[in-house]
Amino acid sequence: MSRGYIIPIGGAIDKVQDPAILKRFVKLCGGKNARIAVIPTASSERSTGQTYEEIFLEFGVLRSVVLPFESRADCAREDWLAILEESDGVFLTGGNQLRLSTTLGGTPAAKLLRIKNQNGLHVAGSSAGAAFLSEHMIAFGDEGSTPRHGMVALAPGLGLTNRIIVDQHFRQRDRLGRLLTALAYNPFAIGVGLDENTAAFIDGDENVEVVGTGGLTIVDPSNIEYTSADLAFSAQKGEPVSLLGVRLHILVRGDRYNLHTRVAEPALKHSEQR
Amino acid sequence: MSRGYIIPIGGAIDKVQDPAILKRFVKLCGGKNARIAVIPTASSERSTGQTYEEIFLEFGVLRSVVLPFESRADCAREDWLAILEESDGVFLTGGNQLRLSTTLGGTPAAKLLRIKNQNGLHVAGSSAGAAFLSEHMIAFGDEGSTPRHGMVALAPGLGLTNRIIVDQHFRQRDRLGRLLTALAYNPFAIGVGLDENTAAFIDGDENVEVVGTGGLTIVDPSNIEYTSADLAFSAQKGEPVSLLGVRLHILVRGDRYNLHTRVAEPALKHSEQR
Repeated sequence: MSRGYIIPIGGAIDKVQDPAILKRFVKLCGGKNARIAVIPTASSERSTGQTYEEIFLEFGVLRSVVLPFESRADCAREDWLAILEESDGVFLTGGNQLRLSTTLGGTPAAKLLRIKNQNGLHVAGSSAGAAFLSEHMIAFGDEGSTPRHGMVALAPGLGLTNRIIVDQHFRQRDRLGRLLTALAYNPFAIGVGLDENTAAFIDGDENVEVVGTGGLTIVDPSNIEYTSADLAFSAQKGEPVSLLGVRLHILVRGDRYNLHTRVAEPALKHSEQR
Repeated sequence: MSRGYIIPIGGAIDKVQDPAILKRFVKLCGGKNARIAVIPTASSERSTGQTYEEIFLEFGVLRSVVLPFESRADCAREDWLAILEESDGVFLTGGNQLRLSTTLGGTPAAKLLRIKNQNGLHVAGSSAGAAFLSEHMIAFGDEGSTPRHGMVALAPGLGLTNRIIVDQHFRQRDRLGRLLTALAYNPFAIGVGLDENTAAFIDGDENVEVVGTGGLTIVDPSNIEYTSADLAFSAQKGEPVSLLGVRLHILVRGDRYNLHTRVAEPALKHSEQR
């Protein structure tokens, strides 16, 4: 069985007017047969999990359950792990991504999510939930579009993939600079900047499809000729970082990108092919 | 073929009086038949690579060559990749680990090192070279034994393993605090704090053996009950981080640890078993 989808979402999801992202997620998970688990750990508001639980039930799924992991001990609860085990899709809400990594990291729940995703479980995360999906997570940072020394803090994430570093609320919070700074440290990963109400649906063959109303910014640093990020430890915080040879794509609804070949294709081309 | 050894070394290697670490490395690589490549990229001093090249030759190896990758273009040079391809062991010198990640990250040389290590190539790194070996690298940070918000900066490393986070010059530079802070973000990895002239020889079955004259500090956060690291983005830099339930081992020459079972064994026990 191939890997399940990895679905980072940029936050501020439209749940009412045109819930295209959530509907696509439910369809992927089996529609009327879908069994979905909601993990609200990132959020400090108790109602967050329940809101999503109810939306998925309104879409007519077979099962929608909140698993409110609040402590590391919760993440070893056999009854909750059994629900994860039987799920087709998992949805991580927004909030604070460090709440996710400190609570779930290294626990049986995190291990199960990695193994199940490898075997077909679809895992979506919005905002903080999106940041957490990858091996390298942006924990926090400063605003602004110029990369600057010390403007971003990385931490280990869930580790479903190490090919991408995700940032969310991307243009709404002017985060190009911190994503570029993160990539400058080591130009092996691809930057995925997600606007609000915008999702990247990444399948097991590393095809990315954009769903939602905003833009997806792809930052491919693989051909960078030079970066001054190695001066970080001696530079003053806030000094700009030089980066020569970054490749950038802005994708919108229907556009595609492959994380393996690093080739972008417009939506138009797919229509022509059909 | 099983994975080659991963060998982080704490820096300040004894090259003359009692070069136990370098001799053990050479023996692993085949002794008189060993073909060794030295990567001096972390260092700003031109002589660093040559020093190691000569030491290995004095030990009587078959081949010892410096590959002075200075730019990202260097890391795609076919002649140098061919030498890596034919090596039994690679040695990364000390210096600045961000020089390694910004120069090698995402290049054909880094890819080749990962693939070859999976197939038996032994990869050793001293100081900055040690920090770079793992998926999560401590890029820079502050001194002190109490973990404090914002005291450590992580960056993606070479990625030979994601099971450990390495810190070096460990007790000499009082780095327990920054290693604990890094682990607090996500308690899935194991902290490996290496004193100077001390190496962790990690085999393909995740057995760690200590060689050299100092201590190796193992920090196992897997049973942490609670950490306040999730407050990092709102906390003042320098405020202490709470961490409840860390497991700590100090190992010396001959002691062993397994990164999979997380069990430590004294040197004595191994002697008794033989």
